[in-house]
Parts: sequence; structure tokens; C-alpha cells
Amino acid sequence: MPASVTRGTQTLVVSKDLKLSTAGSSYSDGKGILKEAFQRMVAVVELDHVINGSYYGVSPVLAGVRVVVRSPNDELNFGVDESYKLSVPATGNPLYAQIEAQTVYGALHALETFSQLCNFDFNARIIQLHSAPWTILDKPRFPYRGLLIDTSRHYLPVPVIKSVIDSMAFSKLNVLHWHIVDEQSFPLQIPSYPKLWNGAYSYSERYTFDDAIDIVQYAEKRGVNLLAEIDVPGHALSWGVGYPSLWPSATCKEPLDVSSDFTFQVINGILSDFSKIFKFKFVHLGGDEVNTSCWTTTPRIKSWLIQHGMNESDAYRYFVLRAQKIAISHGYDIINWEETFNNFGDKLDRRTVVHNWLGSGVAQKVVAAGLRCIVSNQDKWYLDHLDATWEGFYMNEPLTNIYNPEQQKLVLGGEVCMWGEHIDASDIQQTIWPRAAAAAERLWTPFEKLAKDTGSVTARLSRFRCLLNQRGVAAAPLAGYGRSAPSEPGSCVTQ
Amino acid sequence: MPASVTRGTQTLVVSKDLKLSTAGSSYSDGKGILKEAFQRMVAVVELDHVINGSYYGVSPVLAGVRVVVRSPNDELNFGVDESYKLSVPATGNPLYAQIEAQTVYGALHALETFSQLCNFDFNARIIQLHSAPWTILDKPRFPYRGLLIDTSRHYLPVPVIKSVIDSMAFSKLNVLHWHIVDEQSFPLQIPSYPKLWNGAYSYSERYTFDDAIDIVQYAEKRGVNLLAEIDVPGHALSWGVGYPSLWPSATCKEPLDVSSDFTFQVINGILSDFSKIFKFKFVHLGGDEVNTSCWTTTPRIKSWLIQHGMNESDAYRYFVLRAQKIAISHGYDIINWEETFNNFGDKLDRRTVVHNWLGSGVAQKVVAAGLRCIVSNQDKWYLDHLDATWEGFYMNEPLTNIYNPEQQKLVLGGEVCMWGEHIDASDIQQTIWPRAAAAAERLWTPFEKLAKDTGSVTARLSRFRCLLNQRGVAAAPLAGYGRSAPSEPGSCVTQ
Repeated sequence: MPASVTRGTQTLVVSKDLKLSTAGSSYSDGKGILKEAFQRMVAVVELDHVINGSYYGVSPVLAGVRVVVRSPNDELNFGVDESYKLSVPATGNPLYAQIEAQTVYGALHALETFSQLCNFDFNARIIQLHSAPWTILDKPRFPYRGLLIDTSRHYLPVPVIKSVIDSMAFSKLNVLHWHIVDEQSFPLQIPSYPKLWNGAYSYSERYTFDDAIDIVQYAEKRGVNLLAEIDVPGHALSWGVGYPSLWPSATCKEPLDVSSDFTFQVINGILSDFSKIFKFKFVHLGGDEVNTSCWTTTPRIKSWLIQHGMNESDAYRYFVLRAQKIAISHGYDIINWEETFNNFGDKLDRRTVVHNWLGSGVAQKVVAAGLRCIVSNQDKWYLDHLDATWEGFYMNEPLTNIYNPEQQKLVLGGEVCMWGEHIDASDIQQTIWPRAAAAAERLWTPFEKLAKDTGSVTARLSRFRCLLNQRGVAAAPLAGYGRSAPSEPGSCVTQ
Repeated sequence: MPASVTRGTQTLVVSKDLKLSTAGSSYSDGKGILKEAFQRMVAVVELDHVINGSYYGVSPVLAGVRVVVRSPNDELNFGVDESYKLSVPATGNPLYAQIEAQTVYGALHALETFSQLCNFDFNARIIQLHSAPWTILDKPRFPYRGLLIDTSRHYLPVPVIKSVIDSMAFSKLNVLHWHIVDEQSFPLQIPSYPKLWNGAYSYSERYTFDDAIDIVQYAEKRGVNLLAEIDVPGHALSWGVGYPSLWPSATCKEPLDVSSDFTFQVINGILSDFSKIFKFKFVHLGGDEVNTSCWTTTPRIKSWLIQHGMNESDAYRYFVLRAQKIAISHGYDIINWEETFNNFGDKLDRRTVVHNWLGSGVAQKVVAAGLRCIVSNQDKWYLDHLDATWEGFYMNEPLTNIYNPEQQKLVLGGEVCMWGEHIDASDIQQTIWPRAAAAAERLWTPFEKLAKDTGSVTARLSRFRCLLNQRGVAAAPLAGYGRSAPSEPGSCVTQ
């Protein structure tokens, strides 16, 4: 739901040869971001039916879209201006829709909105645009609107990741949080430590470093940032398949060996390699669910702890903070899961963003402490919780109990999490959609315009899920819990 | 599994600029079928990873594929020659793979097989082809290898149908049985009776006549025939939304009114329109699950029955046979569901193909009666039966208890059925695959080469399902029943 919309009553016919004009734009589009987005928009509008009707003389013909981008800079990063104005006049010769945006990424959102105004007319077999003139002023409520995918519990082929990115752009999500590695597998090539991907499930279930570059570029062209995560010191068992000395011992393999400089050399190597390709302001260092018992049951590490006057909890803090320093040395701000804040919040680097997941009520504590926060409380925004309904996704408010405007600004946004234990290429899209789209509206639309109860959202979200289906995205019915099959025959828009 | 395979030990590098040569071919490819299939094959081989390695001097480079098609005729229909020979030599300068086929459709199968010989090399970042020289001689065991989709219980957007067709070609299925209409909705435009699609679920959940042409052409370019079905006289309630006089009465709406000539005029109109676009030798007229009680409880029809000396069962036969005559008048052979055979098999037109679904043991009776048969026994080959395992799909033998070679020839093949009560765009691919691929091997591979127990198939089918995932098809894990989510983290190839 856009921030502001006015519309009229005129129907336009969309030209089969829709033109892109950039007259007056300050943006040269050297990378082809705008041009390709325009072509994708036209392709998606024309995808569903054969368009071969005659359209002259019926209604005014929309000849093209004029896009004026004010900034020549197309570096995508956190906080980039995503606002846009989309006007579709009802008259003009030639008749052009007008998009104005500060950056090309605002223009991409405008093109997506434009595509959703277009409809196939079954009688005339043409594309129509109803209710012109339109004026849409729009910008996101939160700068961080994320989706997590997990390629460690199950490998996701590159084409599948790309199709997830495509579908994110349809609902204006702008951060793909790539939980690359976990205890089960290490699928990514790390040039600095080439044995790390020995921890992959199989020869084929791997990403080359160039694949990662390709994914980043693919996402950037769609206005989606890539947030890379290595989750340390827990959730890192697979690292030791290639470098067993990262394990406390051959029989006790998690968390990473806190006592060894090699551990931090490897982290430094990974983050150094990351910094060459993941240009997002943030890197995610995990830090959750750390069971430190291997550190005290392994004599070598136990001695090291005593020697350094640390208990297990000190060592956990030491590890997280040392990893933070390495990330900062590579130019990153850090995101850590909330346990780091809950255990030693005042020790975290001030550039830390705390990633909530355990429950609600954390964000208010984080911002009260002056740190930034991303909201992903698992009871509402974990997509792998199949009993979490779209209504729950919609109503989950990141600013609950945060009233101070300065503190509100510290909530960067939220993220829905598609953990991969029971997710692979077969079911990822239907488990993400349509629930992620409900959260996407919560994160995009001004608070005042959000629905107070979900009854008024059903029709709109249902239409959006049918739109996703038309575009080949396997979004599930709204009815039932997450990823439910339709319970009986019926129309897409009522299920 | 091809009919015959020999291979060697040489690894080749596949050129990044693979050429298509048709030197010596009698086929002009005026429609671009071969050229487009070649481009699709290259795209699918290169889809999964960034290919930017240097490949000179490593191994012999495969420069292209030479395709020799003997027949200039590219009309796709039942019984077209689908055989091919694929040779990949280990030496040559330039080094070309060789495809020989009687028709372009055999060549398409060869290109699909070729694509499955190609693998991404993660070290060199190039495409390799192992185990050359290859000689593969191949042809299908059965000429009819079908998959049913149902667009009445749930509408399937055109892009979804196209992606199903894409995936059929990957496993060499060659008939898409389009169960277009049923009691719940009538989504297709019928020019002769333009109110019929008033029975669609909604304005958007419809196919124009041109969409149907587009689907047929899309399928033909992939070697897939379109079998259109109208299921009469039962399963046709939705017809009456546009033409209520097709109903026995406003309160008793199925089966179609047997007493009215208008009913048969409409059938004639539909089949006349069909004959313009569905060029497959067969049309499917349904005929299953007919509850004739509305005919005797509706006074007008009851009188007609008495007047014509028919009981309900006579009228059912009369309806089916009259519909058959209409289809034959439009040049079709007919396929009917098995109830027609079970009830009045000796009265059916001799051009009838009986479509088994109720259980096993029917095919032997049908061919003993000299009629042709397609096997779809629901206990094994109904994809909507989620408790039907891939092992059951694999082991279901169409020629069970049929020993006479002449009778064996009357079994045209088999079909797996994806009924749509609980299937829509969100879950169709994962419910079809990988189980349909298990049946596809049963229908393609010579009987002698089929596995005697499924243990030896698991690895091959598992690899094929991972290949589908790489190509963006949401094929489900093998483990568990149909459409199971993965039960735990793990590799694609072991789940």
C-alpha cells in the first residue's frame, strides 16, 4: 500500500510497444539498471496472456513511461533513497506516465507499482490501465526490509536464489540476508581458505566465489542488498571439515576454538574476501545459541581460559568482540543476533545492530541502550514456523512500546526468516509467500495507513498472491497456516 | 535410462560458444524448432553457475553439435518417430557431437540427453562432459507418455502451464492431457459458444482461445502433444452457468441434459473449435462417474426417456456414443474413461481408446476386446494420491498380464494424473515431481532394462530431482510420500 494515492476514472490502453524515455534525467544508466528493469516490467505485464487485440480508437493509448532520476549515483546500500512519484495522466499526446525519483532504486519501485496497475483485458486482448489519472507518492517506512535464506541446512541452486530475489522485488523487500554457512554445510568458496567449502554437502552443492558475485549483482539490479552472514562462534561445525584445527577437538566440534589465533585468521580471511564482493554496509556475525561446553571439556582450551583468567561467558564475549573488530577493520558495521546484546550489550561496539529473534520486547531494550535493532521475533516473523499465519505477520509492529522518535529511528526495520531445516528448492517459494508480503506491507506503508485489523487486508493480499502465481511464483493460499495446500476446489482470489 | 549406452573415459570441455550444425540434414527448421531447442539446451546447461574459466589446453574442446534430421516433416502427432542416436566422440578437429534422428522430435530428445551429460566443473569454472566417447541409441517403449493437469478445480496461469511443459520435456513425457473443464469452472473461451466461459471462477481466471493456441504451440516446440478433454455428460455443471438450458433443471444440474439437441450442438461447437487448434489425433471425451439420477427426477427428461424407450443406462450410452460420433466428424479418434468400456465396451466406436483409472487389470480386458488402452490406475499413477510413492510409480507396469504381442501393441502407454482439487500454482510442480519422472522411465525404457527393484533407481532418480531443482523446477525430495518437505537438513542427493 503506497504512502499516498489519488486516482480517477479513465481507462487507458497500454501500448504494445511501450517506450522508455529518460529525457531530463540526471542518471546515465551506464550499468543498464533502469533499462533492464523497464524491459522486465514490460515482460511481466505481458507474460500471462497472448496480447493481439487491436487497440486504436478504443481508449487513449499510453505510449510510454518517462523516468526522471535526479541522482547520477547508483550505488546501492543501506539508506539509499527509495522514494518515488508515479503519475499516470489521462490525457496527452503522446501520453506518457511519469516517474520521478531521487535514485534509480526509487524508479525501480515505481516501475513495479506501475506493473501492478496494468491488467489484461479478456475481451479486447490488450493491456489496460484503469482509473487514470493516477498520482502516487511513495516511500518506505523502514530502510531495512529483509528476508533471510539459509543455504547450509539445504543447498539452494543459484537459479532458485535468483527467483527468490525476483519475488522480493515484487513486494519491495530490499535486503536478502544470506545465512550462508551453518553447522551442517559450508557451500561457498572462500579464496583465502580454499578448503572451507570441503564442508559442502557434495561436489555439486557449492557456490563459487564468482557465483556469489553474480548473485550480488543480480540482486543489486533489482534494488536488493545482500547481507552476508557467518555465524560465529557457534553454528560453525562445517568449517572444520576442511580445517579440523578449528574444532576444539575431533570429538567436540562446536563452537570454534576460541583459544587459537588461526580461528581469527580464518575469520579475517573470510571477511576480507567478503569485503571484495558484499558491498552492503553491514555484515552479519551471528553469535546466537552458543553452547560453550566444548571449551571447558577440551583440556587445551580449558588451560587457555585459566591462563587468560576467563570463564566460559567471558570467552564468548571475547570471541564476539574480537570478530567484531575484524569486521570493522574491513569497513563493515556489524549485525549480531540478540544473545550478544542480552549477555553483554554494553560491551558491543556502538556500530552494532542487534538482530532480535527470540521474542518480542527486545527492540525497546536495544534502542533504550542506544543501539540499533532489526526485528525478527520468531513467534511472528519466522517463516519456518508453519503455524505462524499471515495475519500474525501483518500485525507484528516493530515499534511496539517505542515512543521516543530518536529511539524509533534506531529500529532499522525488520526481517522475515526462512530457515532451511525443512526447506529446499521444492518448497521455499510457497513457504515464503504470501506471508512475507504481509510483513513487507508492515515495513513499507506509513503506520497511519496500515490496517488496524487484517480483515481489510485479505482481498488485497489475496490479489497479490494470485499476481505472484501469474508471474510463476509458487505463492501458497492465504487460508490455513503457512504453506497449506488449497483445502478444496475454488478461485485463487478466495483461497 | 536410454535403450542402449556405451561410454569411455575421456573428459571433454564444452565450448562456451557451442555451435549448432545441421550439415547433411533434410530438415529445414522453418519454424525454428531445432534452433530454439538448441538455444534452450545451452541456456539450461549454463544456468546454474558462472562459467568464466579458461579451458584451452586442459582437455579436448567440444566445439558443437551436428544434428542430422532425416525427415523434412515436423508435424507433431501420435506415433511420430522419437528415436535418436547421440554420439560424442573423444577426438576430432573440430570436435562435434553427432545427433541423428528421423524427426526433429527425436533430435529434441537427443539434445535433452546431451544436456544431462554436461556438468559444471567447480575448479576450472567450465562445463565438462565426462566419459567420452559416448554412443547412445534410444527410442521410447510406448508412444503415449502422458501427464494430466486439471484447470477446473484450480485455475493454472499460462506461465505455470508452460513451466510444467518445460519440465515434461526434461523427462521425455510427450502428452499433456489438459482436463480443461469440470463441474467447478469453465476457464476456456469457446468462440462458438461465447457464454461458456461465464462458468470461470473469475474474470482473471480464464484462457482466451489465443492462449490455448499459444500453449499448443509452446508444447509442440518441446515435442509435447496437447490432448484436450471435455468430460461429458458428467463433470460438466459449469457449462450451464452460461447456458442454463444445458442443466436438467435449475436444481439438478448434472449430467448435461441428454434429451436436448442443444446439448449436442454445444458439444459440436466446442469440438469444432477444438479441431482448429488441438491437432493431436485424439480428443478426450471423459465419460466417467456419471450419476444419471437428474435425468429421471426431471419430469421433462423422464418423459423423453420413456418416449425413446431408454432407461438411465441406455441414455448414458446414447450420450457417450453420440458425442463420439461428433468428435469423429471433426477428425478425431476418441479417448474415454474406462466406465464407458466397463458399461458398454462392445458398443464403443472401434477408434476408441479406453483410459483406465479405477484400478489395475483393466488394460488386459480392453486389449482382449481389441480396443486400445492408456493406463492410469489411480492406486499407482494418480499424483494427487499423496500416499502413492515414487517406488509405486516406477513399478507400475502397463503390460501386466498382457502377453500377446498384438495385444501389447494396443496399450499405447500410460499417463500420470495431477488432479487439481488440492493443487494450484503453489504446489503443482512439487506434487508432480519427482514421481512423474519415475513413471516416465517406466514408459520410456525397454522393459529388459528397467530396474527389477527400485533400490537401483534411487540414486539416478535422486540426481534427476536435483537436476530439476537446478533448473528451477520445485521437485520434492524422494523420501516420504508425495510432496513431502525434507525431514531434516541434508544433501539434495540423499533426500
